[in-house]
Amino acid sequence: MTPPPSSSSTSADAAVTGTPEPVDAPAGTTAPDDSTLPKKWSRIMIPFVRPSIEGGIWPIKRSVDESVDVRAGVVVDSHEAIEVELVVTDPEGETTIHRMTPEENDEYSGRFEVTELGRYAYTVRAWLNRFATWQDQFRRRVAGGEPHEELESELQAGVDLVRAAMENADGTDAKKLKADLEAFEAGDEEAAMGEGIAARVRRNAPHDMMVESQTYEVIVDPKIARSGAWYEFFPRSTRDDGKHGTLDDAAERLEGIRDMGFDVVYLPPIHPIGVQHRKGKDNAPTAEPGDPGSPWAIGGLLEDGTKGGHKSVHPDLGGMEAFDRFVEKAEDVGLKVAIDIAFQTSPDHPYVEDHPEWFHHRPDGSIRYAENPPKKYQDVYPINFENEDWPALWTELQDVFQFWIDRGVTIFRVDNPHTKPFAFWEWCLAELRKDTPELIVLSEAFTKPKTMYGLAKLGFNNSYTYFTWRNTKDELTGYAKELFHTDVAEYFRPNFWPNTPDILHDFLVHGGRAAHQLRFVLAATLSSAYGVYGPPYEHVFNHQHPDREEYAKNEKYEIRTWNWDDPMSLQDFMGRVNAIRKDNPALQQMRSIRFHETKNPNLIAYSKKSGDNLIVVVVNLDPHNPQEGQLDLDNGALGLPHDDAFIANDLLNDTRYTWRGQHHYVRLSPDRPAHIFRLEQEGQEHEVFERPVHD
Amino acid sequence: MTPPPSSSSTSADAAVTGTPEPVDAPAGTTAPDDSTLPKKWSRIMIPFVRPSIEGGIWPIKRSVDESVDVRAGVVVDSHEAIEVELVVTDPEGETTIHRMTPEENDEYSGRFEVTELGRYAYTVRAWLNRFATWQDQFRRRVAGGEPHEELESELQAGVDLVRAAMENADGTDAKKLKADLEAFEAGDEEAAMGEGIAARVRRNAPHDMMVESQTYEVIVDPKIARSGAWYEFFPRSTRDDGKHGTLDDAAERLEGIRDMGFDVVYLPPIHPIGVQHRKGKDNAPTAEPGDPGSPWAIGGLLEDGTKGGHKSVHPDLGGMEAFDRFVEKAEDVGLKVAIDIAFQTSPDHPYVEDHPEWFHHRPDGSIRYAENPPKKYQDVYPINFENEDWPALWTELQDVFQFWIDRGVTIFRVDNPHTKPFAFWEWCLAELRKDTPELIVLSEAFTKPKTMYGLAKLGFNNSYTYFTWRNTKDELTGYAKELFHTDVAEYFRPNFWPNTPDILHDFLVHGGRAAHQLRFVLAATLSSAYGVYGPPYEHVFNHQHPDREEYAKNEKYEIRTWNWDDPMSLQDFMGRVNAIRKDNPALQQMRSIRFHETKNPNLIAYSKKSGDNLIVVVVNLDPHNPQEGQLDLDNGALGLPHDDAFIANDLLNDTRYTWRGQHHYVRLSPDRPAHIFRLEQEGQEHEVFERPVHD
Repeated sequence: MTPPPSSSSTSADAAVTGTPEPVDAPAGTTAPDDSTLPKKWSRIMIPFVRPSIEGGIWPIKRSVDESVDVRAGVVVDSHEAIEVELVVTDPEGETTIHRMTPEENDEYSGRFEVTELGRYAYTVRAWLNRFATWQDQFRRRVAGGEPHEELESELQAGVDLVRAAMENADGTDAKKLKADLEAFEAGDEEAAMGEGIAARVRRNAPHDMMVESQTYEVIVDPKIARSGAWYEFFPRSTRDDGKHGTLDDAAERLEGIRDMGFDVVYLPPIHPIGVQHRKGKDNAPTAEPGDPGSPWAIGGLLEDGTKGGHKSVHPDLGGMEAFDRFVEKAEDVGLKVAIDIAFQTSPDHPYVEDHPEWFHHRPDGSIRYAENPPKKYQDVYPINFENEDWPALWTELQDVFQFWIDRGVTIFRVDNPHTKPFAFWEWCLAELRKDTPELIVLSEAFTKPKTMYGLAKLGFNNSYTYFTWRNTKDELTGYAKELFHTDVAEYFRPNFWPNTPDILHDFLVHGGRAAHQLRFVLAATLSSAYGVYGPPYEHVFNHQHPDREEYAKNEKYEIRTWNWDDPMSLQDFMGRVNAIRKDNPALQQMRSIRFHETKNPNLIAYSKKSGDNLIVVVVNLDPHNPQEGQLDLDNGALGLPHDDAFIANDLLNDTRYTWRGQHHYVRLSPDRPAHIFRLEQEGQEHEVFERPVHD
Repeated sequence: MTPPPSSSSTSADAAVTGTPEPVDAPAGTTAPDDSTLPKKWSRIMIPFVRPSIEGGIWPIKRSVDESVDVRAGVVVDSHEAIEVELVVTDPEGETTIHRMTPEENDEYSGRFEVTELGRYAYTVRAWLNRFATWQDQFRRRVAGGEPHEELESELQAGVDLVRAAMENADGTDAKKLKADLEAFEAGDEEAAMGEGIAARVRRNAPHDMMVESQTYEVIVDPKIARSGAWYEFFPRSTRDDGKHGTLDDAAERLEGIRDMGFDVVYLPPIHPIGVQHRKGKDNAPTAEPGDPGSPWAIGGLLEDGTKGGHKSVHPDLGGMEAFDRFVEKAEDVGLKVAIDIAFQTSPDHPYVEDHPEWFHHRPDGSIRYAENPPKKYQDVYPINFENEDWPALWTELQDVFQFWIDRGVTIFRVDNPHTKPFAFWEWCLAELRKDTPELIVLSEAFTKPKTMYGLAKLGFNNSYTYFTWRNTKDELTGYAKELFHTDVAEYFRPNFWPNTPDILHDFLVHGGRAAHQLRFVLAATLSSAYGVYGPPYEHVFNHQHPDREEYAKNEKYEIRTWNWDDPMSLQDFMGRVNAIRKDNPALQQMRSIRFHETKNPNLIAYSKKSGDNLIVVVVNLDPHNPQEGQLDLDNGALGLPHDDAFIANDLLNDTRYTWRGQHHYVRLSPDRPAHIFRLEQEGQEHEVFERPVHD
């Protein structure tokens, strides 16, 4: 579990002035014990530090090689000079100190790079730089023409400050400060005013009246948490002959998926499937003989007659050995494997027999199946996380993750986390990360925004979103701004999916191929993490269930065959988009996104920028008609020339345009639903963009 | 001093899920001591509570009879019903519990009134209402037509919940719950579904899985802290004959000031004035014989030959007895007295002799006068708050306040608080408020915004502002929005001054009488707390010092005479404005302010609303020319009829207009620079507005 990181002390003897802990007591007398006077106090306030989530209760998130830009407001009474420093502790406990830069309005800025997985901590501290104050006043005395004898006396006032620094110093600084001191004592005004001595004293001065902000944390995830492209498929639907595919059959698909440019293959649950109350095709209440059942009805018979649950592999998928081979093959071709964690059971799960107390019970003692009255789901038993034996249950469920981590899986998609206690996830994920900081956990919570954001705060580092239902320009723009331009961006990593086995939106049903293409471009470029439920998407299979916004002939309940070599598929298109993502750091991060006017509500346009890499995406949201408009760019903000020409290189359609100024005609049609422009200036076209990305 | 109010616990055995303290351990087994499992946990998260300043480090402010509208986001996993409650503790330690109302997007709202001076605390807590969850499901089962025998079994599941509530209940609830239980056991479905039983169970149910937010605080000040009208004058400048006035002379002015409608008379420092290095007229470096000196050069000879400082009254003002008579007279006429606290001394102050260690010293051992090199202020010694004997110093300075509190003064204007340690104020003001919760302390810090706001956070409950320099419509609108529409409004109470003895803005110099009138209306109606340095203002004396933006013949350095009976003075005008303020609760609060379009940059218009009391102020910002425009009102938002006529009653100019619709022609000229309309609907004109104000 994660107690709030070093939250404010309530020690009754510190006058806090906005910061929990003045570090030093003031010089001289200590306040008597029986007085109300503060034992420690400072003249400095640090009113707020950003980024921080709810005052630092929750850590922010970054991925490896990103930076954290810290801002703090710091004030001191009177006109004293202060030093403001950013103290950063890396996951190994190594501490570095960065001097912060004064900005407007008493704000200070500092930056650190996060290069290791795990938890970093950052604190802002500030102390009085008495020598700088003295030096400023002394310079003004000299400029104001004070008489020599007065200056000499003031010079002596600096001696103590230099001596104090000298006593702390060693090496070159100590030697030079000794010389400084001698110059001072000899009345050398010039020496006293220099920048060199200021730096030497600053480096070694006692940190007078220092205060520290509370400590904030950042969890650093693998880069793929930020920029992963996910591909979901059912491993049993990978044969041509309609038979149940194994993980070895599925492994045959890995090179194709890699060639499409994906990073992660995500498999629905791979465990044995319950037989009791098994659902039939299209979620029919009763299965016909031969129906394979839903993989989310977890737990059933193994080949050896025993029961298997969350730590076993369906015999028809080839068992654990086939899984190990699948993971190995994936690694060989350069893909990560993600599996599904759904904490619920079929009536055939071994937990039911071994731990009946882990479930809900009806008054007659029978185990409660899942219900949303009057609907009943007899094939699924929810787990009772509050049962009297909860410590054993929680420990076992955490061990489910650990079991698969030990088999090489570090990416998980968690089914319905919002129906399990928040406290469970907070504890479980924090514990797992202690040994597995590379853990990626995708929250499948299509629920209330505060719950979705809450799960992200307490440990999920990828999250499904409402993107699937956001189709108009206003909807997309508003949602993107909420996700990428508010504090949400500090802890919630949206993973955009245009479809899932549970969701086939009307837009895809009615918009056909063009809709599939344009929604794919949006998913892959609005967020930097995205995924697609691949087979029906790439084959533009969009038959909807008559009653529900989901696929007909749903693979959740039956085995399908797909023509992987169909020349009409979107595989090449998807591959092209992913290649562009890989080549352009601007598309591997989220927060720089900026929306641009197009003068047409059907044309959405946005840019992303990372270093010199500047991408502008224009998408026609109308899958039925051509649309034209005028793209307005803010050349100043984007770093584009105001008068000179620049190149708009459409990486998707291999076309180069020469643009000038801020207004550009754009036209897109259903057979070409998007531009992904790289804007290039003279001589920049052939650069390779491999600089680190600052999100 | 004020440690952060009950800030987050770091106890390592609580899984916090967004709240510091799950209150109950879950039922059943406790996690073993050697496990990482949380000892206490909940299924509920309380992500954030507002109002709160920087996560609750600082209290918010209210005044007596205002309300606090609390909002909290609360989420629970799954679809459990929750109860969300606002727990309020008043200054006497009495606790009340208010049920919070669900709003959109998992927000809950609650309100409490603050009726006593001092510190209130508020906490949001939430717990599982298992009976409501059960009842919701049961109703759906009945509606879904479940067979009777299944319903009967489900009914039994409710029995335990009712019994648990019954065991907690007493009185009528206990009796009724017993009957409920019997009906349940008899299988009475109707009884189980009622609202009555729901309320009885809710009132008495165990608070399952309860979590509490951290505790936030609100400091409740006297109403006058919010809506005081201050009048500053120099008591020595109250005679007709040019001689040094006494506090008895000054007391003669009190009835006139009361008649002008002011609430507070504020006196510059009343202490003996130093003789050494005394400044002459208009801040001349050397005083001529007879020059009275600046009251801010505190400390000098008393009549008995001893020295007097911050706890004494200038002999020429009549000494302490005259002060006591002044305070008594003020009380009699209905005015509060505010005095000036300036923690600095003249070289003649008794502290200099008695506690030389309380000052800064030069290397030669002499006491440092105030300097801002190359400028020198030999007449003033700043106090060294960091000296080795600081506990004695701080205690003495706190006792200065206590001395005057003991003489009946509870309102102080503090000179330059930003040049003293923040920690001193935090400690000093919190300590004083323990016995004197009615304390009002006006911060005279014209400095960096973060410092001004910081001083307000740590205890100042009135603050000077930049209003004095905000003259254009954009400047005034932008500044008002920062002060009244952001979090700043929760802790910073702006006191608007159009002038002070230190500041005579060019706008008043060049704009003459009209400028004085319009700036007075702005000060008195934009903020609800305001003040004026009266004598030169009411006499439109606006001669500026040749080098500085301050008054010529400055009363800080010389005695002036004023014709208190001048018929050309603004006394009647000021009295009229103050009377309108007193009659209209809308003008006694700040946060409801709303700006309205006028289609003329010289006409500013804004409304304030409290209950049915709706005021619209229109001010011509051009003191030289008439200006006309179109006032656009948002009738829906203001509660005005869309079609029917209503009355715009100009309370300032005694004119009534019949208005209809949203657009209204307005014209103002230098001889009539402002309207203060009360918008009245049919039959409302003669209402007396005495309902409580919710700021």
